Amino acid sequence: MALVAEIGKDAGGPERTGLEGLSALVAEDLLAVNRLIVTHMDSPVTLIPQLAGHIVAAGGKRLRPMLTLAAAQLCGYEGARHQGLAASVEFIHTATLLHDDVVDASDLRRGLATANAVWGNKPSVLVGDFLFSRAFQLMVGDGNLAVLRILSSAAAVIAEGEVLQLMTANDTNSDEKAYMEVVEAKTAALFAAACRIGAVVAERPESEELALERFGRDLGIAFQLVDDILDYSALQADLGKSVGDDFRDGKITLPVVLAFQRASEVEKAFWRRCLEAQDHREGDLEHAIALMERHGTLDDSMAKARDFALSARAALGRFADGPAKSALCEVADFCVERAY
Amino acid sequence: MALVAEIGKDAGGPERTGLEGLSALVAEDLLAVNRLIVTHMDSPVTLIPQLAGHIVAAGGKRLRPMLTLAAAQLCGYEGARHQGLAASVEFIHTATLLHDDVVDASDLRRGLATANAVWGNKPSVLVGDFLFSRAFQLMVGDGNLAVLRILSSAAAVIAEGEVLQLMTANDTNSDEKAYMEVVEAKTAALFAAACRIGAVVAERPESEELALERFGRDLGIAFQLVDDILDYSALQADLGKSVGDDFRDGKITLPVVLAFQRASEVEKAFWRRCLEAQDHREGDLEHAIALMERHGTLDDSMAKARDFALSARAALGRFADGPAKSALCEVADFCVERAY
Repeated sequence: MALVAEIGKDAGGPERTGLEGLSALVAEDLLAVNRLIVTHMDSPVTLIPQLAGHIVAAGGKRLRPMLTLAAAQLCGYEGARHQGLAASVEFIHTATLLHDDVVDASDLRRGLATANAVWGNKPSVLVGDFLFSRAFQLMVGDGNLAVLRILSSAAAVIAEGEVLQLMTANDTNSDEKAYMEVVEAKTAALFAAACRIGAVVAERPESEELALERFGRDLGIAFQLVDDILDYSALQADLGKSVGDDFRDGKITLPVVLAFQRASEVEKAFWRRCLEAQDHREGDLEHAIALMERHGTLDDSMAKARDFALSARAALGRFADGPAKSALCEVADFCVERAY
Repeated sequence: MALVAEIGKDAGGPERTGLEGLSALVAEDLLAVNRLIVTHMDSPVTLIPQLAGHIVAAGGKRLRPMLTLAAAQLCGYEGARHQGLAASVEFIHTATLLHDDVVDASDLRRGLATANAVWGNKPSVLVGDFLFSRAFQLMVGDGNLAVLRILSSAAAVIAEGEVLQLMTANDTNSDEKAYMEVVEAKTAALFAAACRIGAVVAERPESEELALERFGRDLGIAFQLVDDILDYSALQADLGKSVGDDFRDGKITLPVVLAFQRASEVEKAFWRRCLEAQDHREGDLEHAIALMERHGTLDDSMAKARDFALSARAALGRFADGPAKSALCEVADFCVERAY
């Protein structure tokens, strides 16, 4: 059970500042979710719980499962089924992280060595598959076909988003529309599904399902926009993530799309050399950040993130005030405030 | 629809010799399955149907979905739901192949370049995830929780088997028990599930589900044993697969386990150099085959495969004679006879 303690400890780490309301709201449920995670990632094949434990611990603040738990509470749900579904959501997320780190050849995640850096790509791919299967086993164990439909569809959309991201990488002609498609698919779809199933498990009318889905989607978009802004921010180093990863990978995020649109011919050549030709030189990242600041693209991206966070809050309008609603609104604020 | 034609053409390729009964039995259903495969692997993200079409076409003879179709017929099923489930089984298999080829860094599959050789590892990992999600969407669309339980559990077991195979690779101390565990998990579990769901969809008693599961498992074990024998056989070249892949990867298959057990000290040093130290020299594969022949390990492995094929046939004892039973018995014969 040392792993439960470690996972629990991590989930309560320093980054939780700003999410106190949510943490307090779901504290008891989250303990149960962490226990389910540890139980279901077990396997007689010892490398599986080792590697899975590493990524689950490194995976962060359990934002997505907490959303499922809070959404269910918002809908007045009083059973325990949301715990298994929250664990399922976290497994889908974790499987995606494992495969992402392989695809991006990342060495660090939240200040820890990635699973692929420690054990290599092969077990990371396969343990990702295992966790993905476990996610479905948990859902099937719950037995609600609507939940299965929502989460299996989200999983397919996530994969589509990841492939689309790969196709738009290193292409400075890729525009804001393509960027938003990637964000909606690779990030917002799981946020939306995680929230929606809270209403499903509470057997609430479809209008509430859809309101929570919209909340989750807009929240997810805001979250990813800020993530992409932070990749060009000094603050990122404090989060244990290296700055400039997206830049080095040639990912076309919104601050880049806008900077390229507003660029002079000389600046366009710079972006093409860095992002398309992947020819990186000393000082390039600093120059890229200076160009973004000159053209206000980080601020404009941030304004967009704030709009989506506001829209997320607005989606909760139909629900009664109370601790669950406050906690979810706090998440929307947290998603944009963590940038400061 | 050119892709349907291509997929159909491939499914009727030269390797079908020996499976005429099965092919005739499920011909109409298989056309429907191929159409479902093409429909469900579609995506606005164009790289997905491109890459998925490549692996689906290269994936071979549709043995696993044909097993689902034939098992359903054996159980007297007369609806169309088995078609969607057969497509789902093929998607799970195809996703596994994509990830396998990445993990093994393979360049060729059945004489065609692998998807990872053409498009790189990244999209292969992600399109594998997409197909896996699609498999679940197809199952969820069917809506039978027993089928979902069987296939999600098989998917987890497959991943466990793949990780276990990775852990036993390059370890000459790995024994027959570990080998059989790998085979049961990575191959036989999906064969077993593919057959069992035929009885589930036909709403037959559990005893028939279990008989078909045993048939599938034993058939899958026989199939994998022969696959592993063929990797040391000249016949393999005719199948468009290169000989000696497992040897070069240091995979510990039954012919190797037995050869190491029966080896002199000098021979043991040879196996350790090739499989553990991965220090390969000209003529090593030929020497490995000669040692296997000297110690009769290919023949002994083949005898074991034949036992499992017989056991598979025996599992069908409770079912009435007829074209479905004959076709399934034919598959058991085919699995071992393809070695000659």
